[in-house]
Amino acid sequence: MTRFHFRSTLIPLAGAVLIGTAGVAAADNDDLADYMDMFEPLPAMPPLPADNTMTPEKIELGKMLFFEPRISARGTISCATCHNPALGWADRIDRSVGHDGQVGLRNTPTVLNSGFLEAQFWDGREPDLEGQALGPIEADDEMAMNLDDAIEQLNEFEEYNEHFRAAFPESDGEITGENMAQAMAAFQRTLNTPNSPFDRFLRGDRQAMSDDQVEGMKLFVDSGCVACHNGPALTDSRFYEFDLPGPTDEGRFVVTGDEADRNHFRTPTLRNVAVTYPYFHNGSISDLGEAINLMGEQMLGTEFEDDELEKLVAFMHALTGEMPQITPPALP
Amino acid sequence: MTRFHFRSTLIPLAGAVLIGTAGVAAADNDDLADYMDMFEPLPAMPPLPADNTMTPEKIELGKMLFFEPRISARGTISCATCHNPALGWADRIDRSVGHDGQVGLRNTPTVLNSGFLEAQFWDGREPDLEGQALGPIEADDEMAMNLDDAIEQLNEFEEYNEHFRAAFPESDGEITGENMAQAMAAFQRTLNTPNSPFDRFLRGDRQAMSDDQVEGMKLFVDSGCVACHNGPALTDSRFYEFDLPGPTDEGRFVVTGDEADRNHFRTPTLRNVAVTYPYFHNGSISDLGEAINLMGEQMLGTEFEDDELEKLVAFMHALTGEMPQITPPALP
Repeated sequence: MTRFHFRSTLIPLAGAVLIGTAGVAAADNDDLADYMDMFEPLPAMPPLPADNTMTPEKIELGKMLFFEPRISARGTISCATCHNPALGWADRIDRSVGHDGQVGLRNTPTVLNSGFLEAQFWDGREPDLEGQALGPIEADDEMAMNLDDAIEQLNEFEEYNEHFRAAFPESDGEITGENMAQAMAAFQRTLNTPNSPFDRFLRGDRQAMSDDQVEGMKLFVDSGCVACHNGPALTDSRFYEFDLPGPTDEGRFVVTGDEADRNHFRTPTLRNVAVTYPYFHNGSISDLGEAINLMGEQMLGTEFEDDELEKLVAFMHALTGEMPQITPPALP
Repeated sequence: MTRFHFRSTLIPLAGAVLIGTAGVAAADNDDLADYMDMFEPLPAMPPLPADNTMTPEKIELGKMLFFEPRISARGTISCATCHNPALGWADRIDRSVGHDGQVGLRNTPTVLNSGFLEAQFWDGREPDLEGQALGPIEADDEMAMNLDDAIEQLNEFEEYNEHFRAAFPESDGEITGENMAQAMAAFQRTLNTPNSPFDRFLRGDRQAMSDDQVEGMKLFVDSGCVACHNGPALTDSRFYEFDLPGPTDEGRFVVTGDEADRNHFRTPTLRNVAVTYPYFHNGSISDLGEAINLMGEQMLGTEFEDDELEKLVAFMHALTGEMPQITPPALP
């Protein structure tokens, strides 16, 4: 039985987060500081890997590649097609539509704050953005272009060689999959959403959240949501199973082959959750309140009262940060 | 015989542009001022229609609609998909790819400076941007959504009603096709590319164009290109026939039913031509020099020498202006 039961597994799962805050679980504890100690404001930047230093040249190249549709089979789909800056850097449809209108298995996760995740993709099959970056280019139902062809496309433009040379001075401008991935990852690590009302509240601005939002934050802790939705991006980057309407797939099992992982999917970030609907790995739920209710029932064994739900929804809206202001590049 | 022969029809076609500059056609006339008199710098704004005044609210709404994919059948194609800001506000593929990967009949024209055109679409079936705006939403092989459904989609978001109310104060926020078209047209009239090297040269900065570019400008006049490519956007917005490789269609005939218009297509703008390849109504030619050669042979009965072609290509590069710096909107 792989289903996650919050009440019996809260302590081992949430681990260090809960140490020293055992009193918080009691609903009558209204010491705001104790609640706030459960959280951390979004840092300005996610952790940076030692082997992919950020430079302006690399970020600029990564931005070009992110917006480049000519590394797709029909020359029409770029990363930015599904990770659309106008739509919370996701696509706001249930499941991704890729090459020639094919519908993918899963909902497009937002790129925003993805550098804070410890597992990429819904099934966590890559640990970091470098590992993630090339997957959608080659996926048959996404951009559907094999990497060699993509590199050949880019090599059509001397301007790209110059950008690769500037971004990777030791490389002499050669375009490789590894360098593409590094550049895209560097760009994506800049796509963070600081200064949400929640962050400003945590930093001491008590007016930044409404009373309902503060109450929602307390409920979020008291009900146990925080057991999985914790850390800077409000996700533990771990994998769980629950029932959803609509089509699904084997999830994490595809990666590990471990029966215990069948139908398990990664906890999504809750940052910007109000603008990154629809929800869950198959995008089957569009309403935020409905999504919270489903989690309450299945993960926490809780049925939220209407006024509780309202407060939790209000709190979720406090997690919308400042969107990156990105001007699309002028591609060669 | 509908084919256009430059030498016999130059004066009636080019009309007022050539009056008083008859001496220019002689190759030995190198008085730069006479050449420059054939042209005009791109104005800051195209002509504004009296019944669609530009307001910041209308432009902002138009921008939202331009980037809005949920007014397409699959929720994935917006105006900005084919009129991609990263690709010269066009798509750099031969013919447009729309709903479910369908390939359209024609190449996507750039939106840049389209407010200066006197005929919209390759066949000129609409006279202005207001008339143009809704066509691609309903076209089966583009966004494939009927207008009523598109309006219903927008009505899902109270935020859109607020924006329509602000843009059309007399309308009480009702979303209509007419108001959508007016807002999109207002936004598109802001997408101009001033201050190209050519414009700066015309305004008196003699260093703005290279010697080759200046020579190319003279050749452009002397060879007769300017007969059709004149006015602020370097197009007469009229219709001509010529032979191209690849698939084609009946062009202007579809609009007028007049046999004389069969296979006729509108003269495209040459502004930003270097960054809006591939060329012609079917996008069959990707190389700028090849496109110029084809025009020379078929429209002007001229075979350009290699060095002439080089100069004409150089001049075309001088027509690339400053791209609009647009940050995609945050859609509801």
